[in-house]
Amino acid sequence: VLIDGKPTRTIEPIEGGVSILDQTRLPHAIERIVLRTAEDCAHAIRTMQVRGAPLIGVTAAYGLAFALKKDPTSAERASQLLLSSRPTAVNLRWAIERMRKAIAESIDPWIEAGKIAEEDVETCKAIGASGSRLIQKIAEYKPTVEVLTHCNAGWLACVDWGTALSPIYRAHDAGVRVHVWVSETRPRNQGALTAWELRSHGVPHTLVADNTCGHLLARGAVDLCIVGADRVTARGDVANKIGTYLKALAAREANVPFYVAFPHSTIDWTIERGEDIPIEERATDEVTHIGNVRIAPEGTAAYNPAFDVTPARLVTAFVTERGVCASDGLSTLYAK
Amino acid sequence: VLIDGKPTRTIEPIEGGVSILDQTRLPHAIERIVLRTAEDCAHAIRTMQVRGAPLIGVTAAYGLAFALKKDPTSAERASQLLLSSRPTAVNLRWAIERMRKAIAESIDPWIEAGKIAEEDVETCKAIGASGSRLIQKIAEYKPTVEVLTHCNAGWLACVDWGTALSPIYRAHDAGVRVHVWVSETRPRNQGALTAWELRSHGVPHTLVADNTCGHLLARGAVDLCIVGADRVTARGDVANKIGTYLKALAAREANVPFYVAFPHSTIDWTIERGEDIPIEERATDEVTHIGNVRIAPEGTAAYNPAFDVTPARLVTAFVTERGVCASDGLSTLYAK
Repeated sequence: VLIDGKPTRTIEPIEGGVSILDQTRLPHAIERIVLRTAEDCAHAIRTMQVRGAPLIGVTAAYGLAFALKKDPTSAERASQLLLSSRPTAVNLRWAIERMRKAIAESIDPWIEAGKIAEEDVETCKAIGASGSRLIQKIAEYKPTVEVLTHCNAGWLACVDWGTALSPIYRAHDAGVRVHVWVSETRPRNQGALTAWELRSHGVPHTLVADNTCGHLLARGAVDLCIVGADRVTARGDVANKIGTYLKALAAREANVPFYVAFPHSTIDWTIERGEDIPIEERATDEVTHIGNVRIAPEGTAAYNPAFDVTPARLVTAFVTERGVCASDGLSTLYAK
Repeated sequence: VLIDGKPTRTIEPIEGGVSILDQTRLPHAIERIVLRTAEDCAHAIRTMQVRGAPLIGVTAAYGLAFALKKDPTSAERASQLLLSSRPTAVNLRWAIERMRKAIAESIDPWIEAGKIAEEDVETCKAIGASGSRLIQKIAEYKPTVEVLTHCNAGWLACVDWGTALSPIYRAHDAGVRVHVWVSETRPRNQGALTAWELRSHGVPHTLVADNTCGHLLARGAVDLCIVGADRVTARGDVANKIGTYLKALAAREANVPFYVAFPHSTIDWTIERGEDIPIEERATDEVTHIGNVRIAPEGTAAYNPAFDVTPARLVTAFVTERGVCASDGLSTLYAK
């Protein structure tokens, strides 16, 4: 994407490191920081300076490359460090496994990490092509296509383009009138990231509280929902940002299609049931505080799972770089 | 209730006015302010210094009494002012109509307003008795009853006791172990009011983001849901705080009973369909800002409806001062 006229990616290789856009500072400040070690990468993932399943995977790949450059015997230790940084997005494991395989084949880890990043860009572009057709089909009979998304699955969640937002950018760039309802996504407010992305790209959008999404769907204000994913099981259950499940329930109730967009690296073929996906629990001050200001009463405890599971039956279809498939039909697009 | 050992109500008649607890300052400061005119009351309702359907009704009744004391010919003008302060809670219209009827019968409006307030306390107590049986029934086979509520329908929403929280207080006081999941209730965070109430009363509770409620229900963490209402139609559709509908969908999906607690003054016999309830749209800075700090990107617009409609078919039963009835059975408890 272009930010202030300059081509920008979330993560860019530089001499001796990678430069990342610090997402904890967005949308209020555009700041890049440099990661030079596996520890830097694990820290950036854990604190959500980088976030989004595909970008977590790419960052972990670079992290492993840094570790191996410093100490060729550190693969196992660095892999464990990176794998433990966040538990739900399976792209992290996928990237580490791919790096380990490359290392075993004596491929330069730095080259391989760069290849993973470049492939992610191409994959996200292809997701955009698959998904934009779904939007264009609605545009044939409606002047403006109303889309609801949750959290941020745009280019900020990837290296470029995004997963759920890629089809929106593609359709918008092709001249389709799209308006996006952006859910705030408490407690981390990634809706602000999505709003910032859409605004930078010139896509009309409106921010709403998460609570408002049911009302919008029930009142016919939404033509389609599209979200990203952190892990999709072999049978098509989807772990994604907490609150996704509620939107999917409301979409089904309103007969509005609910799409989930992701690359192959988000599929976990080792798990069938969504209930078996590990759900990250984050610090409760994300709920009780805003910034440093406590909003909950003193003495009130909180619970803060970062993801929920949307069962395959609530998903109309998956949007991938290989095309669109029914939520019980992943194996029609991918060989296990 | 007792606050710091002192009997406290949300609204208390004093010489020449009423003293209210300023709910925009809670839970961080306990401050009372005095209302002396209809304009004061309309302002307090509009700015949510008082909130909750029953309390809005009581405040409006006092407002009309103030107007009539000052100018016996002002009934119509003051009624319109008060009616326009917030559109969704029908208790406001109910209270104004009751006051107008009393005035027509030459009853002292100040006495009538006080009577409405006293009756609200008794009504809420009776709702507690009706609802606590539902909790106690679960307690017969479970050591701790897990309750989910949304927004604040406690004593802060009424004069005392509350609607949805009254059964919880009653069960707790009877020795039943209850734990309450409190949803944050963006954008106005009334969950903090509920948490503060529960904490003051010693009821164990945990605050969660609204997004988390689907996950809790899907994972079996909730035995029953109970919420209040701002308006219930003759056929049982429920307008309540935005986000209620999503919780009701998730409760049905998880086979968890979903109860709505309210007094007779919340029933609007003139409307059948929930779609016909006027839904208040509030200022968008409630979504884009927290306090004075903008959290949305510059240039991003927001949409902020304050209520949604939960159709009767998603409600297991109504909990009223006359007992519990099926959501299509209001007329079994009340004559129209």
